[in-house]
Amino acid sequence: MKKTYLLTPGPTPIPESVMSALNRPILHHRTPAFQNIFENVRQGLKSLYQTKQEVIILTTTGTGAMEAAITNLFSHGDTVITIKGGKFGERWTKLARTFGLHPIEIQLPSGQSLDPQDLSHVIQEHPHAKAILFQASETSTGVSMPTQEICKRAQAAGMLSVCDAITACGVFDLPMDDWGIDVLITGSQKALMIPPGLAMIGLSEKAWGAQQKSNLPKFYFDLARERKNQIKNQTAWTPAITLIVGLQESLRLIQEEGLHNVFKRHELLARATRHAVSALGLELLAKKHPSTAVTAVLVPTSISDGKMIPKLMRDKYGVTIAGGQDELEGKIIRLSHFGYCDRFDILTAISCLELTLHELGHSIEFGKGVGAALKTFAEG
Amino acid sequence: MKKTYLLTPGPTPIPESVMSALNRPILHHRTPAFQNIFENVRQGLKSLYQTKQEVIILTTTGTGAMEAAITNLFSHGDTVITIKGGKFGERWTKLARTFGLHPIEIQLPSGQSLDPQDLSHVIQEHPHAKAILFQASETSTGVSMPTQEICKRAQAAGMLSVCDAITACGVFDLPMDDWGIDVLITGSQKALMIPPGLAMIGLSEKAWGAQQKSNLPKFYFDLARERKNQIKNQTAWTPAITLIVGLQESLRLIQEEGLHNVFKRHELLARATRHAVSALGLELLAKKHPSTAVTAVLVPTSISDGKMIPKLMRDKYGVTIAGGQDELEGKIIRLSHFGYCDRFDILTAISCLELTLHELGHSIEFGKGVGAALKTFAEG
Repeated sequence: MKKTYLLTPGPTPIPESVMSALNRPILHHRTPAFQNIFENVRQGLKSLYQTKQEVIILTTTGTGAMEAAITNLFSHGDTVITIKGGKFGERWTKLARTFGLHPIEIQLPSGQSLDPQDLSHVIQEHPHAKAILFQASETSTGVSMPTQEICKRAQAAGMLSVCDAITACGVFDLPMDDWGIDVLITGSQKALMIPPGLAMIGLSEKAWGAQQKSNLPKFYFDLARERKNQIKNQTAWTPAITLIVGLQESLRLIQEEGLHNVFKRHELLARATRHAVSALGLELLAKKHPSTAVTAVLVPTSISDGKMIPKLMRDKYGVTIAGGQDELEGKIIRLSHFGYCDRFDILTAISCLELTLHELGHSIEFGKGVGAALKTFAEG
Repeated sequence: MKKTYLLTPGPTPIPESVMSALNRPILHHRTPAFQNIFENVRQGLKSLYQTKQEVIILTTTGTGAMEAAITNLFSHGDTVITIKGGKFGERWTKLARTFGLHPIEIQLPSGQSLDPQDLSHVIQEHPHAKAILFQASETSTGVSMPTQEICKRAQAAGMLSVCDAITACGVFDLPMDDWGIDVLITGSQKALMIPPGLAMIGLSEKAWGAQQKSNLPKFYFDLARERKNQIKNQTAWTPAITLIVGLQESLRLIQEEGLHNVFKRHELLARATRHAVSALGLELLAKKHPSTAVTAVLVPTSISDGKMIPKLMRDKYGVTIAGGQDELEGKIIRLSHFGYCDRFDILTAISCLELTLHELGHSIEFGKGVGAALKTFAEG
């Protein structure tokens, strides 16, 4: 018998009451019962996004919503600035190229965040760029990006700020209207605690204006058509009905806890995780601007095959964390701490990490990492 | 948002696949589909009990099966020996009195197990007693009783050994036929990992013989009538159908892990728990014969209101453990470690205990208890 624990930056664990909601008999989507649920979900998403705008729900995953941002806001030949802090920043560049845009990519060393000054220089060099495409949290490196600073600079330069907040929205504070985030994207299997299959995208007035002028072809991802339907509590195409029923429940849970309490919980869990790994003598990849969503930890030099850490944790102990991707494969491990996650999940992950490091021959004093996390929790 | 963790000696957590089985559309019980399931459950219970005898399934809880043992095996005026190691031993005495028997009670100090020599003396004093009624594990004090020794002495004296194994069967080894346990009782919400509502009782040939001679009135709990039905994969009365469907799945899980591997897991979890609380400077109630099912720990003198420990653990941290009962109320806490329980549940409970002791002003070094448990797990 082996229990399983999921501490990855998506999918995240699903709360029991959401699981129950997902298991309700399926509704038809062209019915008042579904429209009722959809209305609740729309209001809940507006609270989550802290916006008066309509948050469009797409039956797709995060990358689909990123593609929707590209095809709805731009025209062939447009220049955009992309910020590559890792694998997901690179995805903006690839998407932009695929649809005939000219991306100007700011490349950051692994584990480093954007210096807003550097962005200002690139803006000066490319004043006709239409937008700045970035991640609020770069999941591949566990780095937090200065979203508010980026939005300010975009606004001053007359550019759109397009924020992939797939592992950030609902994790930490990103008030869309207050900060002037023009496009805010998230996915269902992250802080929203439901299975993958839905993505959400909110557009500012300015972004909706750009949407009308875009000449790129779009059909399934036509956001104007979706908005027209969604304000009537309908969707253009058949939606992932059960996921929307689950989303109603997960939004209710977030509202019950209070959005800012959710942020505080995530921040505490992230802090405890950082203290624990540091107490174990491990090094963080993101030293200056670690993300609240995920903590990336360098594999200690005593362990030659870094991929063994997540493998052993999963196969022997049932605890699934993430390893590194692409050039970071085998070099880092990533512990996630958002969504349906509490202090005992962190203590489980750290306990399991201690057992695993010991088993791989890395010398540790049992309880040292967990003790540091406990101390953090006790201090609150 | 608060996750909940259950470390009580019943109900115990329900595995996900059992939960799914419980949620299947309800069957009618007079159908071949139900009979198929019942046949599987009967075979699974025989393996669990390590017996060739029929294990009777009653729709009741553990106390109901204890009552069935009394009303089926004895006649008005019979003398029986009861072993009172705590609240559950006392229940045998009360049941015996209620049905007109004469119980001779061996009273043990709290936290102590039975010395088989003492039993021999009582047997000599009461050679006409019909049976010895005892607990394999006294849940109220976390004490393990010498079941095999008791059965040997009962057999030599021509008495029946009647074993309440409600928190013992499936927790540690109790081979019914090998040890000559005449009556073995358990309940569904314990090591069987399903909700309360079913109890099981196995009888030896000798016990079935006594059953025929008993003159106490019985109807719902008539074990002979049940056996006649159950060997045809039916029940005398409407059974708790969904629980039997769940039981099929939980027995499958036990078989998959292997019964003796289940015992080893429980033993390791119990040992880690004892090491952890000892490392925290706490004292065990059962010093010499601690039970594998539950660890009873004395509340440290620094904490005036002992009831605050389980209360705070539950209300603030979502971790439910048990306190003391009756005269032990406020004096002990009880951490359970059987059923759907793995090392991270123990680490969660100990982590939570550390946070709680700290909060109640008891000085501890964070990570010390958890570290001792981790060391135990690493050593295996």
